[in-house]
Amino acid sequence: MKKNRVEAFSDGVIAIIITIMVLELKVPHGEDFETLTPLIPVFLSYVLSFVYLGIYWNNHHHMLHTVQKVTGPMLWANLHLLFWLSLIPFATGWMGENHFASVPSALYGAVLLMAGIAYVILQELIIASQGPDSILKKAVRGDWKGKVSPPLYAAAILLAFWWNWLSLGLYVVVALIWLIPDRRIENALRSADA
Amino acid sequence: MKKNRVEAFSDGVIAIIITIMVLELKVPHGEDFETLTPLIPVFLSYVLSFVYLGIYWNNHHHMLHTVQKVTGPMLWANLHLLFWLSLIPFATGWMGENHFASVPSALYGAVLLMAGIAYVILQELIIASQGPDSILKKAVRGDWKGKVSPPLYAAAILLAFWWNWLSLGLYVVVALIWLIPDRRIENALRSADA
Amino acid sequence: MKKNRVEAFSDGVIAIIITIMVLELKVPHGEDFETLTPLIPVFLSYVLSFVYLGIYWNNHHHMLHTVQKVTGPMLWANLHLLFWLSLIPFATGWMGENHFASVPSALYGAVLLMAGIAYVILQELIIASQGPDSILKKAVRGDWKGKVSPPLYAAAILLAFWWNWLSLGLYVVVALIWLIPDRRIENALRSADA
Amino acid sequence: MKKNRVEAFSDGVIAIIITIMVLELKVPHGEDFETLTPLIPVFLSYVLSFVYLGIYWNNHHHMLHTVQKVTGPMLWANLHLLFWLSLIPFATGWMGENHFASVPSALYGAVLLMAGIAYVILQELIIASQGPDSILKKAVRGDWKGKVSPPLYAAAILLAFWWNWLSLGLYVVVALIWLIPDRRIENALRSADA
Repeated sequence: MKKNRVEAFSDGVIAIIITIMVLELKVPHGEDFETLTPLIPVFLSYVLSFVYLGIYWNNHHHMLHTVQKVTGPMLWANLHLLFWLSLIPFATGWMGENHFASVPSALYGAVLLMAGIAYVILQELIIASQGPDSILKKAVRGDWKGKVSPPLYAAAILLAFWWNWLSLGLYVVVALIWLIPDRRIENALRSADA
Repeated sequence: MKKNRVEAFSDGVIAIIITIMVLELKVPHGEDFETLTPLIPVFLSYVLSFVYLGIYWNNHHHMLHTVQKVTGPMLWANLHLLFWLSLIPFATGWMGENHFASVPSALYGAVLLMAGIAYVILQELIIASQGPDSILKKAVRGDWKGKVSPPLYAAAILLAFWWNWLSLGLYVVVALIWLIPDRRIENALRSADA
Repeated sequence: MKKNRVEAFSDGVIAIIITIMVLELKVPHGEDFETLTPLIPVFLSYVLSFVYLGIYWNNHHHMLHTVQKVTGPMLWANLHLLFWLSLIPFATGWMGENHFASVPSALYGAVLLMAGIAYVILQELIIASQGPDSILKKAVRGDWKGKVSPPLYAAAILLAFWWNWLSLGLYVVVALIWLIPDRRIENALRSADA
Repeated sequence: MKKNRVEAFSDGVIAIIITIMVLELKVPHGEDFETLTPLIPVFLSYVLSFVYLGIYWNNHHHMLHTVQKVTGPMLWANLHLLFWLSLIPFATGWMGENHFASVPSALYGAVLLMAGIAYVILQELIIASQGPDSILKKAVRGDWKGKVSPPLYAAAILLAFWWNWLSLGLYVVVALIWLIPDRRIENALRSADA
């Protein structure tokens, strides 16, 4: 019951974030193809962030599936994650409008890094609450995706100041890494049921 | 359980898209009837897109009703559909503000076409997951609406460059075709229950 | 099940409408009390529309409670109601910004009138689907509120062109009439249970 | 059932409020670190309000958990609370844009004070409906947080006109006081189950 409301609230916030992000794609004045040209980087950064938010929604969904009792600290760790996700539209809009310039690209990476850290904090709280036989602990054992993402974000933040396109490339790479749905949690759940 | 969250998330995103679209109807400066005149095409395009989003919500609702187990690829096919739907407010606003000019009208059709393709991909994934006795497969057998819409969108995109009003007329026609609620899925479900 | 999704979608749309309406209350430039003064009519019209949307949510909630099976026409009658409700933020913002001038006040009434008509259409469809022993029919028997509101809206629309403040007063009166929660449906439900 | 819809609607409204608040963090023109500097106070006020809304969501969640039957007056007391919460984005944006100047800081406190009063009204209505053995009454017995907040808000409103930073400090203090999750209701529920 309690969990349902946390899921519903998180779904609501992520659904709103993913949708208001499109408001940064401002309707241009003028009716030609050319008026769309300056919007291309804004559109591309929208696609990238849409995929990231989709990944977060997807993984959040799987992770909460393993939770039995939502505790107070989990509620706040969840809000902390939603906080960083809520900054993605701002970071996306700034990066897109400035055609992936250095500082906006670094800020984008910083927001992704903080969201990633917030996700790990929530994950560790859930594992701690589940005791030694934690389903989630088994599921994320050997979690190379989770281990590899923060250093890649950090590298992308630094690279943004020299080769900003390489930085953008890294964001795309991390998204692709995660795009493969996380079957580990599903598998751990299945073997827990058996 | 899992399906519920996918439905709730999709409902949330579609509800937000349908509602933020009204933000393109900007409050005019001035208090006379005349200040409303330039808003008439924006209003008409709002009505058209509201109907389209209503149709998508309606059919999405029926289609997911037949799903028993949501798979990873379905989640992403669903997000892909939501992505194209999320561009409808932008395309609507641009078309309305430019009084149904050629390029904006063609872009509007392109977004509808991509959303239609995304819908078919999701439908095919669900059918494939249901095996040879798929309820959904029976339901969409002889799906002339689904077969006729993409060529009509494509025709409307091309026509937009010569007779943009005819193009708009085609969008209205496709909406009217779909407005009739899709009883086929309901019937297939009923005969599956019997 | 089906009903749940209609309720969830309607709740979502009404929640978004009620909340984005506050975006018309634009953050002023300047930090004095005086910079708030021009916002007072916008704020008052926000309060009025918030109450109206609260009334609609409340009554919609009660009415759907009596529904057993949602039909296709009901879905569209519901979307039709949501369409008119979605125009309330626009009408509210325009009326507030123009300090309750004649044309914006008349438009506000027109949107309320159309929403009221859409509500009645949905109500009649539900009653028709419930057959001769319709719970909802008993509940709205002697529905003086529903009967009195449309002529009051119509009067307010006309009055707006001569005495716009009287028109505004009528909107307040109709809101107050409805503010009293609709116990009739609750009572009818209770006697149906007994 | 009825309670579910009230929870869902409240979750929806709070989720939207918390998310559209980020729209006040407008994407700056320019791509340097310096262009972010004027946004720092807007960002800080966003963090503060995010925490406040998180607290309200959290406590609202716990409080409604004790409700068995939602009455008409509760619905309206809940909408009244949501009304004041819906003004937080406006008050936050105005305070942030004016770097915590006196009048905007006082208005921010006034909105928090009214939301706090609305919360207490809802709480008292629920307690009254639960009769002499009210679980919620036991839970909030010795509620020093609820007793201490309104005078602190009132003090902050007055202080805003002389030492606006002290006023801001008080808002942070009240948030910290509440940040500790309200275990009293959880405890009362647990002893009621036993």
